[in-house]
Amino acid sequence: KYGLAELTDQVGVVTGLAWTEVGGDLLQIEALRLPGKGRMKTTGKLGDVMKESIDAASSFVRSKAPTLGVKPTLFESVDIHVHVPEGATPKDGPSAGIAMVTSIVSVLTGIPVRRDVAMTGEVTLRGNVLPIGGLKEKLLAALRGGITTVMIPVDNVKDLREIPDNVKNGLELIPVSNVMDVLKVALTRMPEAIEWDEEAEAAKAAQAAAAASGNPTASPAH
Amino acid sequence: KYGLAELTDQVGVVTGLAWTEVGGDLLQIEALRLPGKGRMKTTGKLGDVMKESIDAASSFVRSKAPTLGVKPTLFESVDIHVHVPEGATPKDGPSAGIAMVTSIVSVLTGIPVRRDVAMTGEVTLRGNVLPIGGLKEKLLAALRGGITTVMIPVDNVKDLREIPDNVKNGLELIPVSNVMDVLKVALTRMPEAIEWDEEAEAAKAAQAAAAASGNPTASPAH
Amino acid sequence: KYGLAELTDQVGVVTGLAWTEVGGDLLQIEALRLPGKGRMKTTGKLGDVMKESIDAASSFVRSKAPTLGVKPTLFESVDIHVHVPEGATPKDGPSAGIAMVTSIVSVLTGIPVRRDVAMTGEVTLRGNVLPIGGLKEKLLAALRGGITTVMIPVDNVKDLREIPDNVKNGLELIPVSNVMDVLKVALTRMPEAIEWDEEAEAAKAAQAAAAASGNPTASPAH
Amino acid sequence: KYGLAELTDQVGVVTGLAWTEVGGDLLQIEALRLPGKGRMKTTGKLGDVMKESIDAASSFVRSKAPTLGVKPTLFESVDIHVHVPEGATPKDGPSAGIAMVTSIVSVLTGIPVRRDVAMTGEVTLRGNVLPIGGLKEKLLAALRGGITTVMIPVDNVKDLREIPDNVKNGLELIPVSNVMDVLKVALTRMPEAIEWDEEAEAAKAAQAAAAASGNPTASPAH
Amino acid sequence: KYGLAELTDQVGVVTGLAWTEVGGDLLQIEALRLPGKGRMKTTGKLGDVMKESIDAASSFVRSKAPTLGVKPTLFESVDIHVHVPEGATPKDGPSAGIAMVTSIVSVLTGIPVRRDVAMTGEVTLRGNVLPIGGLKEKLLAALRGGITTVMIPVDNVKDLREIPDNVKNGLELIPVSNVMDVLKVALTRMPEAIEWDEEAEAAKAAQAAAAASGNPTASPAH
Amino acid sequence: KYGLAELTDQVGVVTGLAWTEVGGDLLQIEALRLPGKGRMKTTGKLGDVMKESIDAASSFVRSKAPTLGVKPTLFESVDIHVHVPEGATPKDGPSAGIAMVTSIVSVLTGIPVRRDVAMTGEVTLRGNVLPIGGLKEKLLAALRGGITTVMIPVDNVKDLREIPDNVKNGLELIPVSNVMDVLKVALTRMPEAIEWDEEAEAAKAAQAAAAASGNPTASPAH
Ligand SMILES: [Ca+2]
Ligand SMILES: [Ca+2]
Ligand SMILES: [Ca+2]
Ligand SMILES: [Ca+2]
Ligand SMILES: [Ca+2]
Ligand SMILES: [Ca+2]
Ligand SMILES: [Ca+2]
Ligand SMILES: [Ca+2]
Ligand SMILES: [Ca+2]
Ligand SMILES: [Ca+2]
Ligand SMILES: [Ca+2]
Ligand SMILES: [Ca+2]
Repeated sequence: KYGLAELTDQVGVVTGLAWTEVGGDLLQIEALRLPGKGRMKTTGKLGDVMKESIDAASSFVRSKAPTLGVKPTLFESVDIHVHVPEGATPKDGPSAGIAMVTSIVSVLTGIPVRRDVAMTGEVTLRGNVLPIGGLKEKLLAALRGGITTVMIPVDNVKDLREIPDNVKNGLELIPVSNVMDVLKVALTRMPEAIEWDEEAEAAKAAQAAAAASGNPTASPAH
Repeated sequence: KYGLAELTDQVGVVTGLAWTEVGGDLLQIEALRLPGKGRMKTTGKLGDVMKESIDAASSFVRSKAPTLGVKPTLFESVDIHVHVPEGATPKDGPSAGIAMVTSIVSVLTGIPVRRDVAMTGEVTLRGNVLPIGGLKEKLLAALRGGITTVMIPVDNVKDLREIPDNVKNGLELIPVSNVMDVLKVALTRMPEAIEWDEEAEAAKAAQAAAAASGNPTASPAH
Repeated sequence: KYGLAELTDQVGVVTGLAWTEVGGDLLQIEALRLPGKGRMKTTGKLGDVMKESIDAASSFVRSKAPTLGVKPTLFESVDIHVHVPEGATPKDGPSAGIAMVTSIVSVLTGIPVRRDVAMTGEVTLRGNVLPIGGLKEKLLAALRGGITTVMIPVDNVKDLREIPDNVKNGLELIPVSNVMDVLKVALTRMPEAIEWDEEAEAAKAAQAAAAASGNPTASPAH
Repeated sequence: KYGLAELTDQVGVVTGLAWTEVGGDLLQIEALRLPGKGRMKTTGKLGDVMKESIDAASSFVRSKAPTLGVKPTLFESVDIHVHVPEGATPKDGPSAGIAMVTSIVSVLTGIPVRRDVAMTGEVTLRGNVLPIGGLKEKLLAALRGGITTVMIPVDNVKDLREIPDNVKNGLELIPVSNVMDVLKVALTRMPEAIEWDEEAEAAKAAQAAAAASGNPTASPAH
Repeated sequence: KYGLAELTDQVGVVTGLAWTEVGGDLLQIEALRLPGKGRMKTTGKLGDVMKESIDAASSFVRSKAPTLGVKPTLFESVDIHVHVPEGATPKDGPSAGIAMVTSIVSVLTGIPVRRDVAMTGEVTLRGNVLPIGGLKEKLLAALRGGITTVMIPVDNVKDLREIPDNVKNGLELIPVSNVMDVLKVALTRMPEAIEWDEEAEAAKAAQAAAAASGNPTASPAH
Repeated sequence: KYGLAELTDQVGVVTGLAWTEVGGDLLQIEALRLPGKGRMKTTGKLGDVMKESIDAASSFVRSKAPTLGVKPTLFESVDIHVHVPEGATPKDGPSAGIAMVTSIVSVLTGIPVRRDVAMTGEVTLRGNVLPIGGLKEKLLAALRGGITTVMIPVDNVKDLREIPDNVKNGLELIPVSNVMDVLKVALTRMPEAIEWDEEAEAAKAAQAAAAASGNPTASPAH
């Protein structure tokens, strides 16, 4: 049922938290990885600020690719589609940034996301987590939706004093200051970093291209 | 006659259900597959939300291509045109999502769609079916239009108590929670899954490209 | 003189019928085929709905290309320009759809269009003809303009009872339900279907490409 | 001086006639041909209808290229820039169509345009000349500007009865129904038609491409 | 200091003159030439008319390239960025046209622009200089800004009678009718024309391309 | 904490100063360098003027690349993403220009930016620093945020008399007239200039391309 936590841990499916005029709500974010050319598609009646937060999330992930076990060249051969369902409902704001990072890392690595975890926080290009609004409404929605663990920005910890005790007792609240900490909690396992020597890879690629074009100089075994 | 069910089962022609201010209506959705380059064209005065629902439907189908008997590489060599007739009438909303999936799968596989079936439901990137509005008006339009079977989202079953008995008796109502269930009912037969080893295919493609460019290294039989 | 029928049968010139606030009018539609890359250009202050009707007409023709005697590959090497003169007058609506199909088929096949024929009807991707508005005004304009034959959608036959007898007597009215029937009347002769085996053609094209790149494997005569 | 006829016959410079709320005016149209890729640039605060009239003019010229002594392949290797000076003054309307054709033919052939000639008339894709408005104001502006010859649409001849005698006596008025007649008057000489066998040329181009790629099959002299 | 003349003659930096509601102002125009692909970038909150004046200036320069000592092929391998500082101030109008030509020629030839010269005038595609407004305010700003020489359109000479004597005595005023005259004054030296035989160059380029692709026919020394 | 100085010197992270209706604020600017094709992405709800200031900054850096130790060819193989966090807050204006230059140089050279330095100033294509508004509010925000050194445009020195003494005593204020002076202060070390002979490099690139295509003429060692 929509508005409730998922039944299984899934790749690319992340639970964000939305604040609306009528209260908080779970925000299911879905990403798919498709064979492609490095394009990013976003759907779900997203406002410009949310679209930009997906851009920032994507650039952060690209900049950390080897650390996250992802070959940088992968980005050129896949398209990523990020969709936020209930397509008729407008969504906006930067606060789903860390959820976007999590969703993108999940589809690129194939590692599922814990279905009982929700998160809210803006993300910067360096992965810092910035504070968000509507904390109370978001936490109420998380509790209502069967979520057990919620990651919030460190800078929102000061707002916890306004949150009712039953909410704070019903949820494990994890303050985060960098999205790498988010991934450690949200992914069912952390990806292993790979070695990536950009210059060596570029040389390899150039050699392959030369060989493929039948260049006698670059292909000495001829 | 428009507003009535089709006379034969056709490839790419699916009956959705629209809700308008003056009542429900059948929504004929047509897709064509043309030789091309992976482009999606949409026409019929469609609003942004309906266009995005076609994007989501398309990505879902691409992500499930081998399961649906479709080679993933097919997407690069065809264009798909989705048109919703009565071109002067504005249409919008996400509720034709499962009909869009059905239409796209039909044109890609060449399998006709049952002409006596209608459907309504939003689709997510993972194929989940989300609830829709205007159920009563849509079912009345289906009955009026000669439809015998209507698929509705599981989450709309609770709304059936408001539907008159004659409507419920006149139609076979099938609640669906995933669009794969929709395809089983709507297509005249289910496509057979194919094997698709992405890495093996990529290697094959690279070899073919190398051979085509006269690369002596990659083409040892030289 | 504009507003009157053409003096000769011409390739790509089709007479549609427009409905305006001050009555009906002949709508001269002109298409040109130019060496190109598969682009469609439309001019004449056309609204979005009329532009989409040209898109639908174009896709219909592409999908039926071999039946209409047109090699599908032709579409990649020509541009088509559809212009609706009196460039300062805004035009819109889907009802010129069957005229657009006729114009496009005419320029692709080089077969002229009968100058004494006019037509009105929306077209779907499968070539079905949908009903239009303003029938009376359109028929009056046709009679006034020296047209002898008008094709109208089958679903508009019911509106003929409101048409004055002198109009019905002065015009041959042909109800049509599919645009293939339109072509049989409007073109000075029907194009002959060609054989087109998509897979065989794709193989031929691949071989030609391989030969052109000097590939020794694919070009055994080396 | 602007608003007066040019001092010499120039390539690409054509005098149109504008109608404005404060009377008629000469409309100097300038085209340049530049090495390029077939792009058309238009500047001078032109409205959409005037831009479309340039599109139509351009397509007409492309469709008649060999008749006008222009190799169709030339269009792929040049850009054309059409500018209408007094860049701060908005201009619109289709009535400069025949002047646009003249300007484009002039830059493609290098044949100058007679500086003492002005013209007004909408052009269709087949080169037909459609009537325009503001004839009286335009003719007054032509006389004032030192123009000796004005081409007007045949369908505007009926409006000549409203034109003062001194204007009709001071100008040679040439009614035109096709833009080919315009070119005969406006260009200092008519271009000579060339032979162009589209299929032969396509074959030649394919052979050249094959040779350039070192294809042994297509290049038997190897 | 901004609003004052530059301290040294610089490549690509030209002083235009702006007219605003609160009086005239110097308008510093800066161009840069960068390795690129023939793109033109414009920044500085420029209105559409000023952007079009840059397009016209650019096309004029391209059309006169060999005369100005610039190889036409240079345009394909550089990008030009034209910026008008004080990025928050909106600028518009065509009157900086001749300054744009001067700036573009300067960056393409590497010849500096005299820092004590200012200019105002619209430019056409053939380099004609059209009259501008706000002459008095512009000349006052030039004098105030330490400019010694101002080029004005010949057609504005008639407005000089309204200019105070101290302004006319403090500035050398040079009426210009063609932008080539502007360049003679504004550049620290005139570029030398080069020979450019378009057909010979095209043949050379084709031969080089054929050689690079290893074509045995075109490369007889094989 | 946002609004406070960073804890470490970071590559691509620069502190600008914003002026808002409710006072001044630190403006953290982040840039990332990613493998790519020379694209510039900007996010953070930036207005057109701020986006143009990033364009100008980028062109300045490209024009000075060898002086800044950056190979001009690098620009074709990387994308740069400039983000200004707090994605929901609109930002505009040209005054972050010198901070944008600093950020871009930092990511291209890999040299960190001093975290205790802030800066404000518009930048021109030649690197000149133009004056800005809101100096007082900006300096107060800098002091409040733990910044020790602020670079301001030389042309704003005259505004320092309105700044309270405690602010002037608490901050080292460095007037700058060219952005090269900004870099000397803001980067933890200045990049070393490289030699770059554009023609020699172009020749090298052409030779490499010829070799890669197996051209016997250009690759004499064959
Ligand atoms: Ca909800
Ligand atoms: Ca949000
Ligand atoms: Ca209907
Ligand atoms: Ca709907
Ligand atoms: Ca008419
Ligand atoms: Ca219509
Ligand atoms: Ca004028
Ligand atoms: Ca006009
Ligand atoms: Ca100023
Ligand atoms: Ca101006
Ligand atoms: Ca802040
Ligand atoms: Ca600012």
